[in-house]
Amino acid sequence: MLYKLIETLDQKFHFERAQAHCDIPCGIYDPSTAQIAALTVVRMMDLIAALEGGADKGKTEYHNSMSRYIAVKEEHAEKAKREVRVIWGDYIKPEHTEKHPELHDLVFKIMKLGSKVRQSADREAGVEFVEAINKFAGIFWETKGIAIKRAKAPYAPAMEMVYPNL
Amino acid sequence: MLYKLIETLDQKFHFERAQAHCDIPCGIYDPSTAQIAALTVVRMMDLIAALEGGADKGKTEYHNSMSRYIAVKEEHAEKAKREVRVIWGDYIKPEHTEKHPELHDLVFKIMKLGSKVRQSADREAGVEFVEAINKFAGIFWETKGIAIKRAKAPYAPAMEMVYPNL
Amino acid sequence: MLYKLIETLDQKFHFERAQAHCDIPCGIYDPSTAQIAALTVVRMMDLIAALEGGADKGKTEYHNSMSRYIAVKEEHAEKAKREVRVIWGDYIKPEHTEKHPELHDLVFKIMKLGSKVRQSADREAGVEFVEAINKFAGIFWETKGIAIKRAKAPYAPAMEMVYPNL
Amino acid sequence: MLYKLIETLDQKFHFERAQAHCDIPCGIYDPSTAQIAALTVVRMMDLIAALEGGADKGKTEYHNSMSRYIAVKEEHAEKAKREVRVIWGDYIKPEHTEKHPELHDLVFKIMKLGSKVRQSADREAGVEFVEAINKFAGIFWETKGIAIKRAKAPYAPAMEMVYPNL
Amino acid sequence: MLYKLIETLDQKFHFERAQAHCDIPCGIYDPSTAQIAALTVVRMMDLIAALEGGADKGKTEYHNSMSRYIAVKEEHAEKAKREVRVIWGDYIKPEHTEKHPELHDLVFKIMKLGSKVRQSADREAGVEFVEAINKFAGIFWETKGIAIKRAKAPYAPAMEMVYPNL
Amino acid sequence: MLYKLIETLDQKFHFERAQAHCDIPCGIYDPSTAQIAALTVVRMMDLIAALEGGADKGKTEYHNSMSRYIAVKEEHAEKAKREVRVIWGDYIKPEHTEKHPELHDLVFKIMKLGSKVRQSADREAGVEFVEAINKFAGIFWETKGIAIKRAKAPYAPAMEMVYPNL
Repeated sequence: MLYKLIETLDQKFHFERAQAHCDIPCGIYDPSTAQIAALTVVRMMDLIAALEGGADKGKTEYHNSMSRYIAVKEEHAEKAKREVRVIWGDYIKPEHTEKHPELHDLVFKIMKLGSKVRQSADREAGVEFVEAINKFAGIFWETKGIAIKRAKAPYAPAMEMVYPNL
Repeated sequence: MLYKLIETLDQKFHFERAQAHCDIPCGIYDPSTAQIAALTVVRMMDLIAALEGGADKGKTEYHNSMSRYIAVKEEHAEKAKREVRVIWGDYIKPEHTEKHPELHDLVFKIMKLGSKVRQSADREAGVEFVEAINKFAGIFWETKGIAIKRAKAPYAPAMEMVYPNL
Repeated sequence: MLYKLIETLDQKFHFERAQAHCDIPCGIYDPSTAQIAALTVVRMMDLIAALEGGADKGKTEYHNSMSRYIAVKEEHAEKAKREVRVIWGDYIKPEHTEKHPELHDLVFKIMKLGSKVRQSADREAGVEFVEAINKFAGIFWETKGIAIKRAKAPYAPAMEMVYPNL
Repeated sequence: MLYKLIETLDQKFHFERAQAHCDIPCGIYDPSTAQIAALTVVRMMDLIAALEGGADKGKTEYHNSMSRYIAVKEEHAEKAKREVRVIWGDYIKPEHTEKHPELHDLVFKIMKLGSKVRQSADREAGVEFVEAINKFAGIFWETKGIAIKRAKAPYAPAMEMVYPNL
Repeated sequence: MLYKLIETLDQKFHFERAQAHCDIPCGIYDPSTAQIAALTVVRMMDLIAALEGGADKGKTEYHNSMSRYIAVKEEHAEKAKREVRVIWGDYIKPEHTEKHPELHDLVFKIMKLGSKVRQSADREAGVEFVEAINKFAGIFWETKGIAIKRAKAPYAPAMEMVYPNL
Repeated sequence: MLYKLIETLDQKFHFERAQAHCDIPCGIYDPSTAQIAALTVVRMMDLIAALEGGADKGKTEYHNSMSRYIAVKEEHAEKAKREVRVIWGDYIKPEHTEKHPELHDLVFKIMKLGSKVRQSADREAGVEFVEAINKFAGIFWETKGIAIKRAKAPYAPAMEMVYPNL
């Protein structure tokens, strides 16, 4: 919601710049929310595996933890999908897709991976999900003319992530 | 959420069929929700226009109605976008996009129109939004091998809509 | 939210007609949302039964699927109840209940069945739930003077549903 | 959600008592949530009236406050309707409606009043809404064999409310 | 949301009173929502224990009930935390914390207990959670100059609760 | 929800370390969500001011934009408050508050500022809100032993923000 209205205003006030390039500061889009959500999916998969492999804590505790991990995995997979859709559907312009013709397919693939990580606790799918969203984040920052770097996330599972180099 | 899990199960139990064609009964996807939401956007635009053009009912009543119409328009535009994303991202398979190579662009266009109908009360954009989603619905039912028909919606704004011919 | 405001406007602009009959086009009420949600409840029950009866896929996969089916069942049972309440509480007028004196009890029964299908995975209760909502849909379309037909839903569990004959 | 499952359990463990009377401890149903929400609707109407009648605070401040009051009014009217539906649809049993045959109509009336207080800022409708829900609360506590009292709410608009006499 | 705007208005219209004491009628804050939610957490723990200890009802029924109890426990623990945060963050003023210097720590402790009751089904933690929120409710009513009483909640688990003496 | 369960697991598996220091990687807490939300509040204030000061675009367009800016401001102020509460209530431990005794008051102040930016469109309050949350973010990263830097946000209003130096 936010994004479109900011964009509109910006287009009204910076019309000449908007026409020329795509470098208008269009609004507060940030792929970090999707990236954090995807990391969380992998984290939940690790917790699920640890619970299965760990010492038995009793039936109730097992169910309490398992139900919660699955629900959190579900919720964050959906959140990541939604956030990617918002940036793609609202911020990305035809001139971006001309320059990055793979973008539609990348988003489509992210949606499919997002389904897969909900249907299973397969860590490999989780890692692919994070990486596809990192790729998307890289393209996003490039469209804004902001350089990126790679660094480990400051929390488990500490995967290497794409960040803007501010 | 629902969609993916149904699909998974179906793939497990009907594996041979799924391999062969795309006619598996994949789950309870139905574009009608997006279509009703888009119609509601146009309806709100009509109510906004009627309020602006109508006799003055007093400041409080004007604000109460206007705030509510805008909020409903906002909410249903977002709902339509979300529902289209779910069907596209979860149900649509690569074999569908091969047969309908315009599908990614159509969905992308629906997202853009969904932004436009939130940023304004421009009825023409609303009508375009409904029509783009009708087109999407037509493709959807075709992938399932179900014929479509066109009929007026049984409520205002009574636009002609795409329905499955059950 | 939507429904009431449309109704209000319509009452203002079509006052004479509203007084005379109940045939005003009152707004975008559509029982199909409740019907699809109820079908989804039955679909989840079938998936739960298939999971219980199927080959063992391992503890994690079992829990992941089971938790998700139950959550989807829960959510859609509640959604169906809410949608029926909205149509009943907002669209239905005293003149409708005079003509259909069984309506209050039917809605009350739908609420009870909606509770039952959450508390268990009993398919018979699920089928009763769908049928009660179909009956409600039939009365709804009758109040609008629109004929109905019966046809199989175009997705599993493919139960026979009530549709408006558009 | 909560209510039904508590009820189920109770019915299993206290079956003989449940059959005999309606004095089973059925679960954590409490009409106070609906009552507080309805009071809030009236409070918002008072704030809207004060804003309209007050000295002009400038266009921005006026809009900021007005939008927020209307949104809060909307939200709490819906909340009150939902809470009443839950108690009626989940807790109330056929034996209660036999003893209180007016209950279906009272709930139906509450739904209608809940629509009215959203469509306008008419304080009289707001007061009627609170009173109808108080009446509902009175019946509810009676079905549980708990005496009621009337006392002023400890916050504006300080209307007289029905409370259980604990 | 509600609370702050009421407060603002009140401050505008009753400025002289507000300056003098803390007895302004600040708005519709009521700790009962948090108290009911915390009670619900304990109730769910009791139902979980009963399910574990009860006769075997079959795998599906066990999972259906267990998943739902855990989800309800989760939801109400979060609800209680949120409600306490709202009253503390919005209603409580520096003059209250001067008079009750333990308030920040009490709220902090409630947050911790709210985490604990989600991570486990430990009834003792649940009881502590209810009691900490009762203590918070007692301070709240004292700041408003309203006497309190203790009475058993009129529903299971029927713990002794703090109520305003209206 | 996420946070607490990660923490629990970590405590179980790294018990000896957890006892000794507070440097365990406790989970996926990240103040960036609260920071982005607070920036959005200021952005909305700027858009509101631009709308008021701009050429008249007609009554409908004015209302459509104003309603949406206020709703977005509202939503993001609440989001920032919630996120800060989660990190404070779930991640922050007594050993952190011993080292940062100002933490409770800082969080309390953030809540108050979050109320203020909803009740008005006062940009100064918005800036204070962002700065208080930046201060909170700085303390958070310090508790994790991660150095911070200051850099301009890569989107309007481009305020200087606190980031972890990854």
